Amino acid sequence: MHKAINILLILLAFSLMANAQHPNLILTQQAVKEIRGSLGKYPLLDQTVENYQNKLKQALETDILVPVPKDPGGGYTHEKHKQNGKELYMAGILFQLTGDKVYVDFAHRMLKQYAALYPTLPLHPERKSNNPGKLFWQGLNESVWLVQVSQAYDCIYDALSAKERAYLEEHLFHPMVQFFTEENVRNFDIVHNHGTWCVAGVGMISYVMGDLKMVEKCLYSTRLDGSGGFMAQLEQLFSPDGYYTEGPYYQRYAMMPFILFAEAIQNNQPEKYIYQFRDGVIAKASNAILQLTYTNGRFFPINDALKEKTYLTQEMICNVDIAYSRFGHANGLLSIAEKHGEVLIAKAGLEVAKAVAEGKSQPFDWQSIELKDGANGDEGGIGILRAGSATDQLCILMKYAGQGMGHGHFDKLSISMFDNNQEILQDYGAARFLNTVQKEGGRYLPENKTWAKQTIAHNTLVVDGTSNFDGNLRVAQQQHADCFFFETDKMNSQVMSAKDHHAYPGVKMQRTIAMLQDSEMQKPIIVDLFRVKSDMEHQYDVPFYYQGHLIATNFEYKAYKDLRKTMGSDNGYQHLWLEAEAIPEQGSAQFTWLNDSRFYTITTITDANTQLLMGRIGANDPNFNLRNEPCLIVRQPKAGNHLFASVIEPHGVFDPTSEYTAQSSSKIKGIEVISDTDDATIVRITSQQGKHFLLMVANDKAEKNALHSVDTPKQTYQWTGPFKVEIENMGLTH
Amino acid sequence: MHKAINILLILLAFSLMANAQHPNLILTQQAVKEIRGSLGKYPLLDQTVENYQNKLKQALETDILVPVPKDPGGGYTHEKHKQNGKELYMAGILFQLTGDKVYVDFAHRMLKQYAALYPTLPLHPERKSNNPGKLFWQGLNESVWLVQVSQAYDCIYDALSAKERAYLEEHLFHPMVQFFTEENVRNFDIVHNHGTWCVAGVGMISYVMGDLKMVEKCLYSTRLDGSGGFMAQLEQLFSPDGYYTEGPYYQRYAMMPFILFAEAIQNNQPEKYIYQFRDGVIAKASNAILQLTYTNGRFFPINDALKEKTYLTQEMICNVDIAYSRFGHANGLLSIAEKHGEVLIAKAGLEVAKAVAEGKSQPFDWQSIELKDGANGDEGGIGILRAGSATDQLCILMKYAGQGMGHGHFDKLSISMFDNNQEILQDYGAARFLNTVQKEGGRYLPENKTWAKQTIAHNTLVVDGTSNFDGNLRVAQQQHADCFFFETDKMNSQVMSAKDHHAYPGVKMQRTIAMLQDSEMQKPIIVDLFRVKSDMEHQYDVPFYYQGHLIATNFEYKAYKDLRKTMGSDNGYQHLWLEAEAIPEQGSAQFTWLNDSRFYTITTITDANTQLLMGRIGANDPNFNLRNEPCLIVRQPKAGNHLFASVIEPHGVFDPTSEYTAQSSSKIKGIEVISDTDDATIVRITSQQGKHFLLMVANDKAEKNALHSVDTPKQTYQWTGPFKVEIENMGLTH
Repeated sequence: MHKAINILLILLAFSLMANAQHPNLILTQQAVKEIRGSLGKYPLLDQTVENYQNKLKQALETDILVPVPKDPGGGYTHEKHKQNGKELYMAGILFQLTGDKVYVDFAHRMLKQYAALYPTLPLHPERKSNNPGKLFWQGLNESVWLVQVSQAYDCIYDALSAKERAYLEEHLFHPMVQFFTEENVRNFDIVHNHGTWCVAGVGMISYVMGDLKMVEKCLYSTRLDGSGGFMAQLEQLFSPDGYYTEGPYYQRYAMMPFILFAEAIQNNQPEKYIYQFRDGVIAKASNAILQLTYTNGRFFPINDALKEKTYLTQEMICNVDIAYSRFGHANGLLSIAEKHGEVLIAKAGLEVAKAVAEGKSQPFDWQSIELKDGANGDEGGIGILRAGSATDQLCILMKYAGQGMGHGHFDKLSISMFDNNQEILQDYGAARFLNTVQKEGGRYLPENKTWAKQTIAHNTLVVDGTSNFDGNLRVAQQQHADCFFFETDKMNSQVMSAKDHHAYPGVKMQRTIAMLQDSEMQKPIIVDLFRVKSDMEHQYDVPFYYQGHLIATNFEYKAYKDLRKTMGSDNGYQHLWLEAEAIPEQGSAQFTWLNDSRFYTITTITDANTQLLMGRIGANDPNFNLRNEPCLIVRQPKAGNHLFASVIEPHGVFDPTSEYTAQSSSKIKGIEVISDTDDATIVRITSQQGKHFLLMVANDKAEKNALHSVDTPKQTYQWTGPFKVEIENMGLTH
Repeated sequence: MHKAINILLILLAFSLMANAQHPNLILTQQAVKEIRGSLGKYPLLDQTVENYQNKLKQALETDILVPVPKDPGGGYTHEKHKQNGKELYMAGILFQLTGDKVYVDFAHRMLKQYAALYPTLPLHPERKSNNPGKLFWQGLNESVWLVQVSQAYDCIYDALSAKERAYLEEHLFHPMVQFFTEENVRNFDIVHNHGTWCVAGVGMISYVMGDLKMVEKCLYSTRLDGSGGFMAQLEQLFSPDGYYTEGPYYQRYAMMPFILFAEAIQNNQPEKYIYQFRDGVIAKASNAILQLTYTNGRFFPINDALKEKTYLTQEMICNVDIAYSRFGHANGLLSIAEKHGEVLIAKAGLEVAKAVAEGKSQPFDWQSIELKDGANGDEGGIGILRAGSATDQLCILMKYAGQGMGHGHFDKLSISMFDNNQEILQDYGAARFLNTVQKEGGRYLPENKTWAKQTIAHNTLVVDGTSNFDGNLRVAQQQHADCFFFETDKMNSQVMSAKDHHAYPGVKMQRTIAMLQDSEMQKPIIVDLFRVKSDMEHQYDVPFYYQGHLIATNFEYKAYKDLRKTMGSDNGYQHLWLEAEAIPEQGSAQFTWLNDSRFYTITTITDANTQLLMGRIGANDPNFNLRNEPCLIVRQPKAGNHLFASVIEPHGVFDPTSEYTAQSSSKIKGIEVISDTDDATIVRITSQQGKHFLLMVANDKAEKNALHSVDTPKQTYQWTGPFKVEIENMGLTH
């Protein structure tokens, strides 16, 4: 950097320091005025303040305890320091809103105790090697603490004397910054969500302390060269669509430091135009993470993910409120804020509370959307098709993204399906009981590797009983699947298609998922065409992890009713009990289950070699770490090229309250292949009432103007573009 | 009956006929006036009317179809006639409320079609032999239809000409009455819930037609001697506490004809004082059925029961609203009515809607309560202990009732436990998929007999791997268990104890369940003392069907991780997979699971012979009819007298939204027997913090003034009354 500019920046920094006002991180002086004037008007705001007051009331009445760090996550000292961080934050906020010095006194006394303790601390006795902390076993928790406490300090800053501030900064905040930027610099400069928390915490406390030079390190790495730091993280961790490569579970968590630090930058250095950076990537990420939920609020549990997480978490309160305020006041966000029952105490939260009180709330706008993966958006992605309102939405997701680093699962082209506010075809998620000491201290369980990450644990093709890339992360991380086409222009026929040529050497996979609506069907049906090509013969398995209770099959099977064995010995198969198996007749096999108040049927093409296996998760699980849930596996024991063609169909109603059950059987009679070549695939789906639906899909050229022509002995089919859906003319007039 | 009185009654009947006004069954002329004047004022009322209007709008726009009966339950003609019945009812109501003739026209046209069809009908082709119908496969459904349609006819009565009425009565209602009272008289005169529906339907249409003589048959049987009919049903089917011997599932269903017909009698013949009959048994039954729910609204699923049933069913709308209006305006009923979102269109519903609008709603008052079984209240009963508010209530039920006829299960002294709005220790309920054609036509499944009714399917003692009474209904029906004591006066120590000496010849069982609250415990703990006496040696099994995910045990076990066998070959054991077994050390075995947001631990005494088995339901179930849920079985392989002593303890919190988990381990260290004699049992429970709780329970004399004295080498324990709870003085001052 040129010397003169450098000096200019330093002068600018000093001038900013001189003018610095507090608070100005997330909550600003101006917002404090407006919020004070709004109390009693907007229920969401009042509820939040009341909630803080109630929580702090108890804290104010009991002794402040700042214990010497000892326990890992879930243990006493860990939870106590977490709680202290939250209480400091709430005390700071409440002081600003009420002017009551009791909150300053509380926060100051607690911070002094931290200042007395912190310089004496070695690394945490239970530290994790790759990111140690001092107050906490993980540096990660320490960063989170600092993100909160910097806001508290910002709020009480003006109420402390210069001497009091100097003591806290000298003994607590500077040493903490030093710890992060020197001793633990690897995690500070890393382009990873741990790094984001780290730079956010350090950056925010540095704004409060007026250390803009340190803020620059947070933005551009300690080397100041942009090789790490917040800007590099914004560049590399999100795709241009705002998709975070590890998946929704970690994106949810990462959004908090991203959006809070961005807000602090915007409030303190608007000249950075942080929200405009990279074509507004923060806004895109903020929207993407909400699009990665289903209507029940749960994040799609792809990769390592705990299914319990919903958009009700603390991170999503920040995300939704700031998104509303900064990115265009989308009223669909308000319905989520209503469910939060709480707002961020800042200008953003005030705007949300006001808008909700004014009745502006609308249902969140869940869309059919493709989110491309990779820093340049050229590493595949996630495709999501949806139909129906927020109260009863059919949704199917296909994953054709990159590996997603260490938390990624080996599940190229896997699908998950949701309907009626339930999970219908599940992604298992992670094998982990969060913070539950008896389950490996709350960490990922051994079965996360032996089961949850394996390909067979997912609704996708398994070749020869092995996992994608042989389960090798290093190899997998270098590859990704690719979108072939993603077309959602027509409401009644939304289709996506993706390909992967790397997961299994010598095997080319293409999966096409169509969501088709017809008046004869109660809800849209899903057509699933999984095309496999190989010069060698392989065993191909396609599992469907249906959720619910098996109701009926149209095929005979052999049930292992009094002696049960596993399906295999490794790659995840060792965790599956074989409950039954069948060699169905050629034609269409049907499998119907009940989930909540609706029935679902998979209709799948069977040939002379097809085998059907019914399995249940839970074998080789002596510690009872897995959920014992069922699956149907469609197996082609020995094939080179093969097309798995299935229809997944929601139907009927099961209403025990009014004792009403209807349409518990499928409306589909069968599915057959008309043609399947490298150029195109055509299948015919026949309803019980004799209607024929034709789905024609391109396999080679997906361009909108590409002409496709397929000759069959009976007929020539012609169409332009990646796909066509047609009601077949059987000599009748439609 | 004396002839003069007879003539008097006939005269009275004629005079009533002359004065008869319509409607006057459930909805009355007076109520119509009041409801008309209340529209637009009370949301629950308006919602109900709007709901009816919306439903009928569609019906009015489409052709009326009255198909020739053909299908069984769940099939088209079955569902269509059900729907027609509902539409007739709603049309009648809406005509009264709006005066709009379009509703009369609709109902009249439909009734004429029924009148044209009915006389031509033979018995239903899919009829059930024991209670056939004509419109429906079961006479039961036909009665239900008539209960609805009689109200519809009552509502449009005055709008039809005498000739129109004569046609309907001659071709539809009289033949129907004739069918019930002549062809199908066995089901009319039977003392059974089918009979109640039958007499209610016939009685209600007879009131409308002014046939009071027929009403008398409904009240006192066709023989008019009280050997059957409504009054006999009220006498015999309920205990003096209002408990219906088949259990809550059938009581829920039976309440509708009981309460609707009673209401019709009250409106038409107040001189019968029906609500005062038998010390107000209808009011007691109406309260009992609500006390037989848990806070999540679900009925306790003892005996044959589908767990999905809640107090939201149509029957409970009638029950709650009429109970509010007739039995003292208890505001706790209003919170249930709010959840209904709908009221009965009658004076009762109007009162409910008004009271809710006036903000009178309060939480329903769930109580610790004993409901005695048997017509005279001397055949055991159901004991229910509860603690905590409706938002987080701990509840445990013990079943020491009679068999409950054909739908009864063989589960003397079984318990079920609920907490945190969840089922914690489950009663399996019935094996049945209601109305689901593919599952045996929606009827009870074969596994209902081979599994669900068997003793091993319940949380109670199984002797020598056999069921109570060897599964013989006829024998079982002649016996019942007995209450020993039921004491809920003290909030912190509620205790119930029951005995059975019949279920297993030569084996005497006593189970004592205590719900104890102490400041050291987060929630009350349950102490479970199951005392068995026999001169012979037996195998004793006590299963706990815990719901949730196993978290940890304090004992080593052998897991059958890759080969699984059944636990036995008959009496239900053939349906249990053996997942693991253990021979624990002597002392206290602990078993912890996670259910929703809370942990639970069973701590049970183990001696040198104790075996622990971990099992899962689902073996020998080739049609996948059973739910694959787990259990822990405490086994004493060879014992004469034995005391199973356990503590069941809710603890901790699992909150994935805020990533907070605490107290995932038990606060109980162990449990030990101080003394166990025919006079009394004393156990000591020790907390992790070293506190000792003593529970002393009488085994022989339960009188309040009975003195008990137990000598042990160390100490003499003395108390008066059935039990005593004490914090043991260990030389410390408490």
